[in-house]
Amino acid sequence: MSDRSILINRPPLVFAGSPLDRGELLRRDRDKLAAQAKRENAWTMVLFRGLPAMAGEDGLGWMKLDECARLYGPALLQIYLGELRGDPVFATELAQKPPAEAGLAFMDARQAAMALSQSEAAIFAHAKALLAWHERHGFCANCGLATEIVCGGAKRVCGGCQAEHFPRVDPVVIMLATDGENCLLGRQASWPPGIWSALAGFVEPAETIEEACARELQEEAGVIADIAAIRYVMTQPWPFPSSMMVGLVAPVTHATVKVDQHELEDARWFSRDEVRAMLIGHHPDAQLPPSVAIARRLVELWADGEI
Amino acid sequence: MSDRSILINRPPLVFAGSPLDRGELLRRDRDKLAAQAKRENAWTMVLFRGLPAMAGEDGLGWMKLDECARLYGPALLQIYLGELRGDPVFATELAQKPPAEAGLAFMDARQAAMALSQSEAAIFAHAKALLAWHERHGFCANCGLATEIVCGGAKRVCGGCQAEHFPRVDPVVIMLATDGENCLLGRQASWPPGIWSALAGFVEPAETIEEACARELQEEAGVIADIAAIRYVMTQPWPFPSSMMVGLVAPVTHATVKVDQHELEDARWFSRDEVRAMLIGHHPDAQLPPSVAIARRLVELWADGEI
Repeated sequence: MSDRSILINRPPLVFAGSPLDRGELLRRDRDKLAAQAKRENAWTMVLFRGLPAMAGEDGLGWMKLDECARLYGPALLQIYLGELRGDPVFATELAQKPPAEAGLAFMDARQAAMALSQSEAAIFAHAKALLAWHERHGFCANCGLATEIVCGGAKRVCGGCQAEHFPRVDPVVIMLATDGENCLLGRQASWPPGIWSALAGFVEPAETIEEACARELQEEAGVIADIAAIRYVMTQPWPFPSSMMVGLVAPVTHATVKVDQHELEDARWFSRDEVRAMLIGHHPDAQLPPSVAIARRLVELWADGEI
Repeated sequence: MSDRSILINRPPLVFAGSPLDRGELLRRDRDKLAAQAKRENAWTMVLFRGLPAMAGEDGLGWMKLDECARLYGPALLQIYLGELRGDPVFATELAQKPPAEAGLAFMDARQAAMALSQSEAAIFAHAKALLAWHERHGFCANCGLATEIVCGGAKRVCGGCQAEHFPRVDPVVIMLATDGENCLLGRQASWPPGIWSALAGFVEPAETIEEACARELQEEAGVIADIAAIRYVMTQPWPFPSSMMVGLVAPVTHATVKVDQHELEDARWFSRDEVRAMLIGHHPDAQLPPSVAIARRLVELWADGEI
């Protein structure tokens, strides 16, 4: 358990590595939070329908908070993300699409993930996950009445029953099953032809991470993992809309594949040579997901014998 | 990363180790699910206000599903948990407290956790987490209208906007910070005097497990963890109401404690000798949480030099 250093000699995973101080203490203080929004060094990133406004091809289009309000009017949603080198940082979901002459360019979220720096991709993920949750959680699940944002977006409170609701973080296990010589990859019918990836699924209530991993492998592909041998590798935030991807490697004791056609179009074992070819784009008919995905990182680490 | 075997030579953590087949495929089929409820070998555990009905001091009070309906009338909630050795298994939250002459005895949840077998504690955790979620999620967070149970309780669907809502699983990091010679324990003002435990906190949107661990240690106790050195140890389901406890060990680079009085009453370093004394109840004034808590397991493993 001492060799995590091998994992960090590679570039960090996209969406991890936020440089923000989230200010848990500050955001609970209504007056301090209001003061943050009035500071002249308060910045906001700007989104419309979940897509980030960009400055050029590879940077977020940051605006001063007061300028954003002056130019684009009342926001659909505005949340506090924290502080960056002493500057308050917000995220603003615009209520209307800005006119073309405003010159704001919005980029597809996955494209942005690949284009942005590590820090900006992580800040974008934070904003996107929180805003998406607020957009779909305006009402109280407990009583049906309207809820209000408090603590800068860190929770919502019901005006009726006073129930508190916190943004979701949904743990997902994503695992590379291995028989020692081969690793198991699957594909969904909806994916582009030729793409194969690690199997994955949501952790269910009252499961451990390892139990969820073994259950999903058995349900989706019929293979049996050795629960005691499943090893944690790393986590990746995945704001589509609110997943926390827990990357694992799972040695199996029963390797015969039987695909659940409701979940997967296919699943099969790939040798180390095959995935090495896939990693450099030399496999005749199989490709891996792009480098933003933790699945590709798991395959890389396994191909190099590091997990 | 090859020494997970040390972890499993100890008793499994309470609430892990469910023997149920959750039947993900079956529960999506309305007809098959209805057929499960009509089978004469369909069993249910019985709860009232989240407390389990017991058979004696150390077993769940299982009933045949049809008998439960006949004796206690329409349930407040009934969900499908899966299959156990071919028998369908449900959980029923009673609408009313049964009369005393029914002889049903309900036990406090934490007391039950300590009394039940590994398998029954895990099944109880599954039932408790799911039922508690349904009780507080009868309405659609997206539009405020009423939602309905589908898939035996694995989701709810809104009758208005058709939004789907899934039971929450909230990842919580719980970590033993260490400077090599000592480990960091804290206590909340609301706890019984003398109890000290590992620090913990919810993972926030767009954080990795390691980032959440480092953030919480810094916020609550002012200590700085070496993110690259944080190691995953194990998970424990914790159905109060829906947490997934991710146990970690976190070497620190800055060990000076500065307690956030909003979160903790106190936090301080304990030597290996001190926690060894606590583990056998010989410390003059400090105690650890009971063995149901992953915090105690983390301390045990650390005291024995295994993490």
